[in-house]
Amino acid sequence: MRYELYYWPSIQGRGEFVRLALEEAGADYADVARLPEKDGMGVPALMRFLQSPEVKRAPFAPPFLKADELVIAQTANILLYLGPRLNLVPQDEAGRLWAHQLMLTVMDYVDEAHDTHHPLASSLYYEEQKPEAVRRAADFLARRLPKYFGYFEKALQRNGGEYTVGDAFSYVDLAMFQIVAGTRYAFPKAMAAEEPKHPLLAALHQRVSERPRIAAYLASPRRLAFNEKGIFRRYPELDA
Amino acid sequence: MRYELYYWPSIQGRGEFVRLALEEAGADYADVARLPEKDGMGVPALMRFLQSPEVKRAPFAPPFLKADELVIAQTANILLYLGPRLNLVPQDEAGRLWAHQLMLTVMDYVDEAHDTHHPLASSLYYEEQKPEAVRRAADFLARRLPKYFGYFEKALQRNGGEYTVGDAFSYVDLAMFQIVAGTRYAFPKAMAAEEPKHPLLAALHQRVSERPRIAAYLASPRRLAFNEKGIFRRYPELDA
Repeated sequence: MRYELYYWPSIQGRGEFVRLALEEAGADYADVARLPEKDGMGVPALMRFLQSPEVKRAPFAPPFLKADELVIAQTANILLYLGPRLNLVPQDEAGRLWAHQLMLTVMDYVDEAHDTHHPLASSLYYEEQKPEAVRRAADFLARRLPKYFGYFEKALQRNGGEYTVGDAFSYVDLAMFQIVAGTRYAFPKAMAAEEPKHPLLAALHQRVSERPRIAAYLASPRRLAFNEKGIFRRYPELDA
Repeated sequence: MRYELYYWPSIQGRGEFVRLALEEAGADYADVARLPEKDGMGVPALMRFLQSPEVKRAPFAPPFLKADELVIAQTANILLYLGPRLNLVPQDEAGRLWAHQLMLTVMDYVDEAHDTHHPLASSLYYEEQKPEAVRRAADFLARRLPKYFGYFEKALQRNGGEYTVGDAFSYVDLAMFQIVAGTRYAFPKAMAAEEPKHPLLAALHQRVSERPRIAAYLASPRRLAFNEKGIFRRYPELDA
């Protein structure tokens, strides 16, 4: 099956967690909003799903995935669906629930990372909420980042250290790679101090980056660079 | 089976979405942290799961549910698990994914409602971030609440208006009841202006409150009152 991924075309964002899974599995997919409008793709194709009254089960926001007639939104929900189909999650129900639970916790972390630069409103520019962003980021770096990374490190350690979930590679390992990469980009100084406390996560990030399909993906133009439109943004004044 | 729900004992919070499902189904459950410490229950029983190194798959935070040997955290994940077992979700995979997708969107709304009074840090008191809370709440009421409620109203309308998902009552209907109730509590003035735009949601809230088991639950001491420790808090200065 050819999957269609719908996500904003200029950022990694939440869509990246889905892209990584599709890439790791070598799945056939189209990244629709990055394809030409003249072919019926691009952002207008994405907007149709959000706005058309004919879509009975419309997404609230991207990313969403089209798989045959199914339109599935919410990042963790997309991976809940794709996991078994891409062989990126354990087969037993307990393992799948645990993988999903960790993925939902990753998404909570992502929300909080986003709010470091937008503590007051997504509708305002960063420049309109900079002093508040400085305060929120300070709390994030002092308390939240260590709490989340400590939690994920512990999960990895209690599972033996190689895989986050079960006895094989899963989409949760890809998610761990992505939050390490994103947090390093956004907060290089803080992460330099924090990472030595989470050696298993750092080693997992390294192993994921060397997986053949992921390495090829990261070296390709399909992998967008981190930038200051996405979730993980490098604003030096927030990286105290 | 006797389920064990673990959640903070003095607030509705995120645990309430699980309580409502258990109550609607007439399930056998213990609300562990509200039971006496001398019986091995109470908050210490909850903390053990968060802190004991012997819990291989530890929750990041409450609520979590113990079902036999399984410990499941993340509100929407708990309902993903309970839905089929309590007969509170459609049987087909597409219907379940759609119910879960809506539930995840409800949880996003709940996060944003929480951040109206804690825009800078959960570790600070409300009083330490009041001017910022005023600004965040203004944006929430002007843009986010209407966007979420408009989205849920549309989902309800496109499904015929009686049930949010499929052709029977589900945990998503309970969640709709809860966010209407919570938002009315926190922002009575804003909701008085907003609700006429979402008549199907208001009618659903009413129908849910009249379901026999829910009505009995709401009248019982098991239903905690909304208060200023929870997610939905009534601070008149935020209800512009």
